[in-house]
Amino acid sequence: MAQSRLAIEAVYPAVDGGRFAVKRSVGHPFEVWADVFCDGHDVIRAALAWRHETERGWHETPMRFHDNDRWVGRFELTETGRVEYTILAWRDLFASWRADTLKKLDAGQNIEVDLQIGRQIVADALAQAKGSNQRRLTDLVAEINAVIAAERAPVDLLLGDEALALMQAAGVRSNLTRHAPPLAAQVEREAAAFSAWYELMPRSQSGDPEVHGTFDDVIARLPYVRDLGFDVLYFPPIHPIGQTHRKGRNNSLEALPGDPGSPYAIGSEEGGHDAIHPELGSFEDFHRLVRAARDHGLEVALDFAIQCSPDHPWIKQHPEWFDWRPDGTIQYAENPPKKYEDIVNVHFYRDAVPTLWYELRDLVLFWIGHGVTIFRVDNPHTKPLPFWEWMIREVQVRHPEAVFLSEAFTKPKMMKRLAKVGFTQSYSYFTWRTTKQEFVDYLTELTQEECREVMRPNFFVNTPDINPRHLQTGGRPMFQARLVLAATLAGNWGMYNGFEICEAQAVPGKEEYLHSEKYEIRAWDFDAPGNIRWDIRQVNRIRRENPAFRHFTNLRFYNAWNDNILYYAKFTDDLSNFLLVFVNLDPHQAHECHFEVPLWEFGLPDQASIGATDLLEDQDFGLDGKVHHLRLDPQHRPYAIWRLHVPAMSPDTPA
Amino acid sequence: MAQSRLAIEAVYPAVDGGRFAVKRSVGHPFEVWADVFCDGHDVIRAALAWRHETERGWHETPMRFHDNDRWVGRFELTETGRVEYTILAWRDLFASWRADTLKKLDAGQNIEVDLQIGRQIVADALAQAKGSNQRRLTDLVAEINAVIAAERAPVDLLLGDEALALMQAAGVRSNLTRHAPPLAAQVEREAAAFSAWYELMPRSQSGDPEVHGTFDDVIARLPYVRDLGFDVLYFPPIHPIGQTHRKGRNNSLEALPGDPGSPYAIGSEEGGHDAIHPELGSFEDFHRLVRAARDHGLEVALDFAIQCSPDHPWIKQHPEWFDWRPDGTIQYAENPPKKYEDIVNVHFYRDAVPTLWYELRDLVLFWIGHGVTIFRVDNPHTKPLPFWEWMIREVQVRHPEAVFLSEAFTKPKMMKRLAKVGFTQSYSYFTWRTTKQEFVDYLTELTQEECREVMRPNFFVNTPDINPRHLQTGGRPMFQARLVLAATLAGNWGMYNGFEICEAQAVPGKEEYLHSEKYEIRAWDFDAPGNIRWDIRQVNRIRRENPAFRHFTNLRFYNAWNDNILYYAKFTDDLSNFLLVFVNLDPHQAHECHFEVPLWEFGLPDQASIGATDLLEDQDFGLDGKVHHLRLDPQHRPYAIWRLHVPAMSPDTPA
Repeated sequence: MAQSRLAIEAVYPAVDGGRFAVKRSVGHPFEVWADVFCDGHDVIRAALAWRHETERGWHETPMRFHDNDRWVGRFELTETGRVEYTILAWRDLFASWRADTLKKLDAGQNIEVDLQIGRQIVADALAQAKGSNQRRLTDLVAEINAVIAAERAPVDLLLGDEALALMQAAGVRSNLTRHAPPLAAQVEREAAAFSAWYELMPRSQSGDPEVHGTFDDVIARLPYVRDLGFDVLYFPPIHPIGQTHRKGRNNSLEALPGDPGSPYAIGSEEGGHDAIHPELGSFEDFHRLVRAARDHGLEVALDFAIQCSPDHPWIKQHPEWFDWRPDGTIQYAENPPKKYEDIVNVHFYRDAVPTLWYELRDLVLFWIGHGVTIFRVDNPHTKPLPFWEWMIREVQVRHPEAVFLSEAFTKPKMMKRLAKVGFTQSYSYFTWRTTKQEFVDYLTELTQEECREVMRPNFFVNTPDINPRHLQTGGRPMFQARLVLAATLAGNWGMYNGFEICEAQAVPGKEEYLHSEKYEIRAWDFDAPGNIRWDIRQVNRIRRENPAFRHFTNLRFYNAWNDNILYYAKFTDDLSNFLLVFVNLDPHQAHECHFEVPLWEFGLPDQASIGATDLLEDQDFGLDGKVHHLRLDPQHRPYAIWRLHVPAMSPDTPA
Repeated sequence: MAQSRLAIEAVYPAVDGGRFAVKRSVGHPFEVWADVFCDGHDVIRAALAWRHETERGWHETPMRFHDNDRWVGRFELTETGRVEYTILAWRDLFASWRADTLKKLDAGQNIEVDLQIGRQIVADALAQAKGSNQRRLTDLVAEINAVIAAERAPVDLLLGDEALALMQAAGVRSNLTRHAPPLAAQVEREAAAFSAWYELMPRSQSGDPEVHGTFDDVIARLPYVRDLGFDVLYFPPIHPIGQTHRKGRNNSLEALPGDPGSPYAIGSEEGGHDAIHPELGSFEDFHRLVRAARDHGLEVALDFAIQCSPDHPWIKQHPEWFDWRPDGTIQYAENPPKKYEDIVNVHFYRDAVPTLWYELRDLVLFWIGHGVTIFRVDNPHTKPLPFWEWMIREVQVRHPEAVFLSEAFTKPKMMKRLAKVGFTQSYSYFTWRTTKQEFVDYLTELTQEECREVMRPNFFVNTPDINPRHLQTGGRPMFQARLVLAATLAGNWGMYNGFEICEAQAVPGKEEYLHSEKYEIRAWDFDAPGNIRWDIRQVNRIRRENPAFRHFTNLRFYNAWNDNILYYAKFTDDLSNFLLVFVNLDPHQAHECHFEVPLWEFGLPDQASIGATDLLEDQDFGLDGKVHHLRLDPQHRPYAIWRLHVPAMSPDTPA
């Protein structure tokens, strides 16, 4: 009943009170805040304790009092994996005694008895001390005894800085209170938070729509993708494709002879999720591609789509993973009255526990064994949350480098929950946000609310499934604007090929591509006039060169007096890298605005001057005073990215 | 690993993720909200489950889908005590099957196999059903079988409303998920949230400063206190007062012969916390007072001050509860270099656990045995939080009617934590809030932030310890304004005698009363000219007659275009009782303002008319249109309280 005398409250970060791990990237400091207080007026201390999941013992670092009972501590995240952390707090009787005794001494009061009390506190510490603390305390006690034997008072010895430091290290931790249970942070590699994805269909890489592309064809494309500045190369499923109810071109129900089918209809007599579609190549070819990609600074990402064609080998091997109808037929996917007869879904409960769960985990481990550690997971919101939480953890314990992108376009709370249960990155609503207010609202939610601790959006400008209306109607300036928005607002961004040549031909009235590569092989002309490859190359370069773009949550919107112009800053914690981004959201018309240069962020007055570099033009200029004017013409370039030449600041300058 | 398929998140109310019980009053509905969702597209259901701590089984009521994955359920709080509550959620396979099958039927598809599936779901339900559900399901199955025997399809039977209702009651709860651990609400009697306190010193009730007052003298004052409309009569400690280092008048260090001493120096040869100061009377006299108070609609509240004079019997009986210095003397209270030699404090750990804790709990139970169930606890922030949490729970399990007021004037987080660990009511910063912005900020924090679930402020306008500067300088209009602010902003409010006659004579430069009753016996003339007894009587009457004042958190500030005029509404959940309060905060000058009548709260247009009653003048009038004008002259009356004649509204009108 007398436990936990000190209150430890409002610990930050913590998601759902510690139910889920927060996410962080390796190589950054980890800051933990908490309210810590106690009854009475004694001096208290707090410490931050942590350990990597592979360690038995705990590290410890003192927390510092901030203000209003709030304390802060930090340590460096040096390794990927799960880190546990918690907070300790205790009463420091020696420091309390010392402070009181010094006041009495100042007031000229007799402190003889107080010195005796102080000696007792030191003796109590010695009784429980070990190692060097024990030796140093033994020395201190001996010195005190010598002074007393000489009939002097050990005032300096007991009240000096040395005794205080020693007692802080070795003193008894009275009423030691521990925040329990410990909290957790999932520490991931930098690509978890900062990456640029390029999506292509390997089978479309032959350059001839009549010829099925191969992994070797993809190898030939690597210099192109790398030149654009991407670091992840992502393929839709590469597994054998079913024949039964195969879909034809433009999603028609009947495939014609020669139609390749949707790669999402996974599984045929040639194998399932652990096989490669034979026309793409062999495992050896795949390994060569993975290695070649790496040589080009690219990582291969695969699709993890847990669904089967009616020809998938699992159906015979594991009928218990599927739903069967009373007439003996297998249950196809359906959304009544619509039927999706080319797809059958596993269920995850009843006889599928645990064999299916193990199989799926082992599939991921299998592809990791083949050199793939990034997975884009198809429609995770239609599979059980406990499965993802279990599976991702199972994989990351073995491979903390594994990255899982949640391709969930669904209701907001489910999207956030998928991030909580462990998905490294998340698709987002970015693809459908178009107005200034929408960007401010959505990015404020993503960067300032609790979800920021777990959710790392990957802003895709398009996907094979989404040919958004603004791209269909906005033309080249809209492609440029979307590029800049995605690549500078989010740490992770991605595009599906065709975006660079402003491809937007749609199934009329829909957000679907006409002649979708999902149902046919295509050949692309990436040199087509009007392409925005220069812009992509520049923006990806600027991202790599400026660390501010690695900090998703360090985003601030500023005033630009025109609702068509979005204006924001990205910055590093120490403000040393400070970028301004301006985007004209209207692809049809030039817009101009007055805007404020955020001099106040650097403690500068409104009349100050600051230097800047236009990172697209690679041109330096000066900005005198706070308010300036800008014009963005979509026919020229609908965006600008500037780096401010940040003045030297003292470390205490408020950010 | 496969547990908890449904997500149950963001449960409201819950304090610190359920670590502490939320507080509620008996006789009100209890509403619980949560985000509930699941993978996939099946129909889900949620239920709110609860039980009183004295019950073994759980009650259950369905939750209703609100919006954006948010669900709500409610039940009535019919009994005081601790109530546990939690949320259940599950997939409803029958409802999902039914919805899909109806769509297929509408689309003219063959549903023969679907009907077989539906029959299987019903059969599964029957297999686990009990009681009347079992009987009704048996009947349903028999009817279905009869239809099939007649070679017809049981379409209507399976898809009808009756089957749906029956299956909702008896259906298998697939993937049943339970929010764990359960949350708790402490349900308290109405006086916990709605009370008006009057504080007096029994020893000052003889009418003669030379004569020590008695409990019988207090009995003679009861009609007066009741006439003012109070319901709690609170006394500072009534125990024997120590002689050693007794304080004299005006807190002087030397008591003169005849000085009565501070009642907070508890304990003498005549007894300690379980004894009555002999000059006040006997236990028999005290019982008579408690009964007489009750007959006047008043409850007696006592002070619970855990501190001792150097003469307290505990010091000899339980030396292990006290700190002793190496020279064999007892440790007095001190705040170096200041010494408080009239007070010694128990410590709560080491050898004081558990005997002191039991003793203190038993003391509270002792006074409950003598008819007192309301305790004002002195300086709880200087005693350990775990002690309060344990002690209050120990008492309230036996006596859920017990009320504990936390007299903590300290840092905000400690004040909130004391409310979390169980204090029924809390002293607040109200006493030092004076400007319009301060009131808006502080009341917004108290009524809108998480602390509103646990913290019930008791707004004291003054106390024997606090003679606030604004009362010293503001004169009668300030007393009137503070009365109205305290009594209408908070559910609980209180005053210490003298306030009604605008007593504010202070120790120069301090917020302390001159001739403080803490150190001397006084006689009061409550008929003194300029008294505000009429105002107190009216305001307490208006509070009792208008249920809106029982809802602390139902407070809304509105626009009054004058920074000296605070304007707000209090209202019941259904808006049927809707009050407007206007207070001129400047005691020296009349102020006037335009203000908005909140027609929009009732869905009325800006041009609408609404009736109102001035509750002080008991006068009806009409308000035409939204903007009106008001003048408040402190020389006449610096406040107004109106009740709006709320138009009849449909239950769905948004509040």
